[in-house]
Amino acid sequence: MAEHISIGLLGLGVVGTGVAAAIGERAQALAQRIGTPVRIDRVLVRNPNLMRSGISEDFPLTIDPDEILSNPGISLVIEAMGGEHPAHHYISAAIAAGKHVITANKEIMAKHGPELLRAAAENGVMLRFEASVGGGIPIIGPLLDDLAANDISAVNAIINGTTNYMLTKMATDGLDYDTALREAQVLGYAEPDPAADVDGVDAAFKLAILASLAFRTVVRDSDVFREGITHLTPSDFCYAKELGYVIKLLAIARRTESSVLARVHPVFLPIRHPLAKVDGVYNAIELEGDLVDWAMFQGPGAGARPTASAILADVVAIGRAILGGARVLPSPLLDEALAIETVDDLETKYYIRLRAADRPGVMAQVTKVLGDLNVGLASVIQKPVDEAGKTAEIVITTHLAREKAVQQALQQVSALDSVDEVGSLVRIEDRIE
Amino acid sequence: MAEHISIGLLGLGVVGTGVAAAIGERAQALAQRIGTPVRIDRVLVRNPNLMRSGISEDFPLTIDPDEILSNPGISLVIEAMGGEHPAHHYISAAIAAGKHVITANKEIMAKHGPELLRAAAENGVMLRFEASVGGGIPIIGPLLDDLAANDISAVNAIINGTTNYMLTKMATDGLDYDTALREAQVLGYAEPDPAADVDGVDAAFKLAILASLAFRTVVRDSDVFREGITHLTPSDFCYAKELGYVIKLLAIARRTESSVLARVHPVFLPIRHPLAKVDGVYNAIELEGDLVDWAMFQGPGAGARPTASAILADVVAIGRAILGGARVLPSPLLDEALAIETVDDLETKYYIRLRAADRPGVMAQVTKVLGDLNVGLASVIQKPVDEAGKTAEIVITTHLAREKAVQQALQQVSALDSVDEVGSLVRIEDRIE
Repeated sequence: MAEHISIGLLGLGVVGTGVAAAIGERAQALAQRIGTPVRIDRVLVRNPNLMRSGISEDFPLTIDPDEILSNPGISLVIEAMGGEHPAHHYISAAIAAGKHVITANKEIMAKHGPELLRAAAENGVMLRFEASVGGGIPIIGPLLDDLAANDISAVNAIINGTTNYMLTKMATDGLDYDTALREAQVLGYAEPDPAADVDGVDAAFKLAILASLAFRTVVRDSDVFREGITHLTPSDFCYAKELGYVIKLLAIARRTESSVLARVHPVFLPIRHPLAKVDGVYNAIELEGDLVDWAMFQGPGAGARPTASAILADVVAIGRAILGGARVLPSPLLDEALAIETVDDLETKYYIRLRAADRPGVMAQVTKVLGDLNVGLASVIQKPVDEAGKTAEIVITTHLAREKAVQQALQQVSALDSVDEVGSLVRIEDRIE
Repeated sequence: MAEHISIGLLGLGVVGTGVAAAIGERAQALAQRIGTPVRIDRVLVRNPNLMRSGISEDFPLTIDPDEILSNPGISLVIEAMGGEHPAHHYISAAIAAGKHVITANKEIMAKHGPELLRAAAENGVMLRFEASVGGGIPIIGPLLDDLAANDISAVNAIINGTTNYMLTKMATDGLDYDTALREAQVLGYAEPDPAADVDGVDAAFKLAILASLAFRTVVRDSDVFREGITHLTPSDFCYAKELGYVIKLLAIARRTESSVLARVHPVFLPIRHPLAKVDGVYNAIELEGDLVDWAMFQGPGAGARPTASAILADVVAIGRAILGGARVLPSPLLDEALAIETVDDLETKYYIRLRAADRPGVMAQVTKVLGDLNVGLASVIQKPVDEAGKTAEIVITTHLAREKAVQQALQQVSALDSVDEVGSLVRIEDRIE
């Protein structure tokens, strides 16, 4: 046994610096909890001359990835670079070189996770990625270990803190989308280019990972139906409240006997649902299992220190496995053959908001289109919009209906002369345990 | 390697039957997830002739514990009897005989956990107890593994579903204590003798376990300050609401550099606190750690299937460790030397409700007593109680104060001629992240 576990760290940005600082400040506690010391022996950076606060001058920086990937002394590689390239290549190379790997990289795990896990198993090494979903919230571990006896049937999650913050502000302070976004940017919760968050890309990466592990099958980010929050208006939040709902960007994956449907989009959620109470930048993941019924995990979904918490948990797990003499911790098997459903197959309830001429017969036209396609109405609200009384806002909620039928109906409705605009379509998730 | 992992099950009540049924119905999935089959080869019962639904006739029942404890073929013992005796003796004997042990027994882990964990380590076997706290909610695993890199500073938990159900009904439906208890009993949430729940005994067992693991020290149930919910009245719930709080029976453990204070009692919790939103029979455990900041775990805290979920997670973990060739999973070390504080050392805010004569000068007397003991007032409400206007209810909230001073003040206040009764003292926990 080596006298310490030697780590190569790829990247020294926010996450990498957090990991280096956390390992440094708790070296003794980690050694005690693992049973042997761990040490960062090499750090790959792009610019070794950059000033970095909290990183001492004698930190072993390098610009040559081979000093880590081809270094026989390093047994564990922590990838904290982010992005697909070249991180994907480095992770593959580390696994091929027989090194254990920890990554926080949701994009790589969503796109290439199944192949990397197989490669890790074939090479007798561990690949762990607790930090890739939910920041510091334990979720990969509970899913693979603590709930291992369950057949998981559903994942319902708030896994993008930026959009949850924006939606909370839009609901509680009545902000419009642009104002909420600016506020999130000022606070550092949203990037200058917010697309990855507000379009649901980030959440789709994370959902692909969760769905794959939960259902033991391969779900890629490209399998996830995705719709962002950019089209939501203050009036949607007013109607949601009036109807007893809050609006959340949910990541939802459900399996049937033979298939999986994974989707990220805004939903109307009953105010009493546990996820409806999760406000601000926090994340929460709810799992439904046949034994446990449900369990929910909540906490900070991002940030340097929470992410370091997750990465260091993986360091401890790998360290203990090495020290305990285990061959390796088993890789999750993604061998269930489940078909990927499209959102067309979805059956749920819908909220529809549209603007139409405020004259007799219009409502009849709209509801006839829906009725002809078997979309049953649960409630209808009609309100005049302008002083002249020429335009009305019509808000419809439906009973359970097929997405495909609803989309067809909306096409036909928007083609009606009397209808100006279909403003919003939001799916309603009103199943509460 | 044996062709299967052979289990001896102690007890076939609600939990034992749930475990037997769950293992039976998912034998193949478990074999796949562990890497080898598991099988229950012997079940200890008191009465083998009892009819048991869901248990087949050829189930290998025995009334002789030695058929399990002295059976060299059995490598894993699951204790699902409950109660301290004789379960404690059986667990000790199983460990001494070199068998891995899984227990759902909070009483035994709270009273004898440190000794049993040491014995397990010395005998090279694993002792796991995920089901002892929070039913199906993953919490022991996350605490020992997923948050292993953190220094945990606080545990705040709703870990008794019975009392949380009762408090929810008292708050939302205005029920008094007796009515809420009867309703809980009718629904099967409360026992005919409810003392273990309503007096906080059950929660104190669980908190002792959580605090020990969180702070890596020995906290026994006898170290936990404990106060139940029997003295709460509908008016306390009205005042709580008026002041922006909900009432929860919380299990709270906090550590300082050198000491631990663990306590179970009703608290006033700000309505916006994540734990304030946990209603009904559910459990939720919030942990504060230096890296993760906080994480909360929520779900069903009891029931045969959720408990089976937790026990089977331990079966999978032990099975994988055996199969992976690990020596054993490490036992948690409880070697931090921390002093146990008493509740006298507590500094928090307080809600005090008392009845006094409704005449000039009484309020001055009461507030002088508090002031002389350095208990600062945050708010005072005085309301007449009877038609004649002879008695008033005085409700006081304090700033941060020492428990010892507050208790002294209340003794002096209740000795005042003008004061009829000190009705309630409830501690206020208003730190929100």
